Amino acid sequence: MCLSDNLTINSIKQLVLDNHSPSSSHTKKMLKFSNDLIYELWRTIDSEDTTRFPVSDIVLGGSVAKGTWLRSSGDIDIFIKLESDSTRKDLDDSLEIGKITLNSLKYSWKLRYSEHPYIESDIKFNGKSLKINIVSCFDVDPRDCKSAADRSPHHTNYILNNFNSKMKNEVRILKQFLISSKIYGAEIKTQGFSGYFCELLILKYKTFQNVLKQISDFTVGDSIYFDDSHSKFTKLHENSPIIMLDPVDPKRNLGSAVSLQNLHKFIHVSSKFLDNPSTNSFTKIKFKLNNSLSDNLLMIYFTHDEKTIDTLWGQLRRSFNHTSKYINKNDFNIIRSTISSNDKNESAFIFLLDDLSIPDNRLHSGPLSNMKKESIAFIKKNKKESLTFWIDSNGQIKSLQPRKYPKIKDLLNNSINSKNVLGIAPGINTSFQNTSKISTGKSVISFSKNKSWLKESLGDVIGTESKLY
Amino acid sequence: MCLSDNLTINSIKQLVLDNHSPSSSHTKKMLKFSNDLIYELWRTIDSEDTTRFPVSDIVLGGSVAKGTWLRSSGDIDIFIKLESDSTRKDLDDSLEIGKITLNSLKYSWKLRYSEHPYIESDIKFNGKSLKINIVSCFDVDPRDCKSAADRSPHHTNYILNNFNSKMKNEVRILKQFLISSKIYGAEIKTQGFSGYFCELLILKYKTFQNVLKQISDFTVGDSIYFDDSHSKFTKLHENSPIIMLDPVDPKRNLGSAVSLQNLHKFIHVSSKFLDNPSTNSFTKIKFKLNNSLSDNLLMIYFTHDEKTIDTLWGQLRRSFNHTSKYINKNDFNIIRSTISSNDKNESAFIFLLDDLSIPDNRLHSGPLSNMKKESIAFIKKNKKESLTFWIDSNGQIKSLQPRKYPKIKDLLNNSINSKNVLGIAPGINTSFQNTSKISTGKSVISFSKNKSWLKESLGDVIGTESKLY
Repeated sequence: MCLSDNLTINSIKQLVLDNHSPSSSHTKKMLKFSNDLIYELWRTIDSEDTTRFPVSDIVLGGSVAKGTWLRSSGDIDIFIKLESDSTRKDLDDSLEIGKITLNSLKYSWKLRYSEHPYIESDIKFNGKSLKINIVSCFDVDPRDCKSAADRSPHHTNYILNNFNSKMKNEVRILKQFLISSKIYGAEIKTQGFSGYFCELLILKYKTFQNVLKQISDFTVGDSIYFDDSHSKFTKLHENSPIIMLDPVDPKRNLGSAVSLQNLHKFIHVSSKFLDNPSTNSFTKIKFKLNNSLSDNLLMIYFTHDEKTIDTLWGQLRRSFNHTSKYINKNDFNIIRSTISSNDKNESAFIFLLDDLSIPDNRLHSGPLSNMKKESIAFIKKNKKESLTFWIDSNGQIKSLQPRKYPKIKDLLNNSINSKNVLGIAPGINTSFQNTSKISTGKSVISFSKNKSWLKESLGDVIGTESKLY
Repeated sequence: MCLSDNLTINSIKQLVLDNHSPSSSHTKKMLKFSNDLIYELWRTIDSEDTTRFPVSDIVLGGSVAKGTWLRSSGDIDIFIKLESDSTRKDLDDSLEIGKITLNSLKYSWKLRYSEHPYIESDIKFNGKSLKINIVSCFDVDPRDCKSAADRSPHHTNYILNNFNSKMKNEVRILKQFLISSKIYGAEIKTQGFSGYFCELLILKYKTFQNVLKQISDFTVGDSIYFDDSHSKFTKLHENSPIIMLDPVDPKRNLGSAVSLQNLHKFIHVSSKFLDNPSTNSFTKIKFKLNNSLSDNLLMIYFTHDEKTIDTLWGQLRRSFNHTSKYINKNDFNIIRSTISSNDKNESAFIFLLDDLSIPDNRLHSGPLSNMKKESIAFIKKNKKESLTFWIDSNGQIKSLQPRKYPKIKDLLNNSINSKNVLGIAPGINTSFQNTSKISTGKSVISFSKNKSWLKESLGDVIGTESKLY
């Protein structure tokens, strides 16, 4: 049985590679294109005042450089490395290199902001859309980083120096496996596992199967590192569900972005796949919406300015967590919930509640009736609003008071108009107040009909996802 | 202000005495009647075989003997004391004395059962109904009791030996105060304060006002005793909300019958009266039914055999507690509730719920998804019934399952017919199963219309009782 299972896994892996690996001609074209672009960037530098840009090197990074990219998702990441003694102003100035180069090639581009600004360009390449990121960084030792991007070229080098070609394919299979479970990507949006994380897992455990075996037996809080001398750094990250020390800067935990939920998902799908290997684990999750649940749906939909995905999702998560707390504090019970966004200008918070209405009256518990001062104060304070007072079997004074908002829709409609009681993040608060639309029940489904991003999120709230369970 | 308040309290007390004390002619008639009855009992004994009844004495007991009775509630309690070496058989045989005597006087009587059988007779006296209890007991030292009734004559003697006439009136006022708050009586039905308890409070604190002052400052678990050498016995009763050591048998706690709720009520009404003295505190509580709450009423009404009140209420309390637990366990939330009975053959449990219906689906929380064995077992066990599974933000597997009975009426109708899932006490279980009728909402009100005992209980569940708060 073991042999047969193993064969099955191997043939599944081959199928995944056939479907998702780039062809060798595609690879060649991508590398040529990247190198040509780097040549053009150098030409721009040479054509300008040479002291203006203290560039030490221009290198290809990311999954294309490392040869671990998937056909559908290879971006071109180019790093312009500045002399180690350069300043933040030099970094900002160096954006010109990309702008001038892309302009001369007639490629449109956008200025994007992560920790610092960079250039992004979406072009047509080989008949498909291709994203080019041109990012400046300082050419420093990874332990002396001056900007968030400085480590990236070191990561590329580390993988290139330690990988063999077989490993690259194992990474591709692992990536596709995580993409299918919606836990690929370390951005705030996903809170999952980055490409570099996948590469290090393969470096550590060699094959896709071994990674799954290790992860399926993983204990929350366990750590992975590449040099025994690094073990002392694990204690810096005690609250992290998974610790993966960066081999190029071992004080850093690459697992800090991973949510507990996504670690559990990874563990669960790993067990599930090893137990019953199937190509299903590499295809996109499909949800069957459970319409009997839709009566208890609540959605707050709103529009906002465009911003980088990390900025947007940071603001969305914060606002969502506060809104959830507010709903719970008002005695509504959230069963499942999610954040949804088209990652541009529309977002929504979706909740499956126990019920859209709660009882008309609310029980208030007062002090024990023999606490004279407190009892008198409680009765005085609540007399006007109370339908009735009584002493319960424990001697506690109780009061029953009508709720102002027994319907979630009324509660939220009122809260949105009040001074930010929901705790919406400042970056989206104004547009939230001005554009929020609250839907409940089946109208959430009809509202989502023409918005594929919303429809997909509904699956996370009222969907039955047969693949995972 | 203090003087004026004091005057007010005194005039209130006088009004209470005017309304509730028996007249001196009534008192004389009652004592004559009691003595005549005792004479008749002796005559019966003399007319029988003298060795048949080892009677040592026949004495009047209770509130009439002590002169602390209220016009509306004086019973005649006669104790037939048997020689200390008599047997339980002698006790049973001695019932004949009462039977023969009452028969000869043409009074009808019933055999009643408390700890042991006794004779009860309801007669017309002075144009009103009068209850006569003829109870046998053993003539022993109170610390060597052989039956539950043996202590009673000692209580009577203790009070008679220590009271002055002023104290008798203070007791009457205190009793009426407790009757008005529905906390007078140590029976299982009431779980309040007995007449003897009231007498001892007055003995200890001399006046009605002093008792209220002491009680309003009472701390749960405090103790009251009449001889410093008794203090060592208080630790025998650590879980009792109030400890009152019986001066004739100091190991006994007369407060053991008092519920925590009723102690709190006593404390609360004491504070309230001292704060704002009023004749209201001596009239029957009147409830204003809060009809806006009646939508969430639930009543289980049933009939049963007649039995002594203590037996009935013991069975009712046990059944009620189990039923309440069952309702809570099934996720319905009880706000207030009470037991109601005509103390003969009809009873009911009345509940005010948060809501008569709860959400159609119920959240089941499974293990953390990385507990492989448990996760598989949970999914396997719940797969058939689950609408959906998911991993929540803590990594826990959750499942949503339709409820069988989201309506309380359906849940209970089903439970009554199933094998005693409600935990009804054996003594009433058969009649409960055969006669139970479940009403909800406004139909509870209409059902109670012609049953005054039910209507009064509704006040305890959806009533606003303006006097207490």
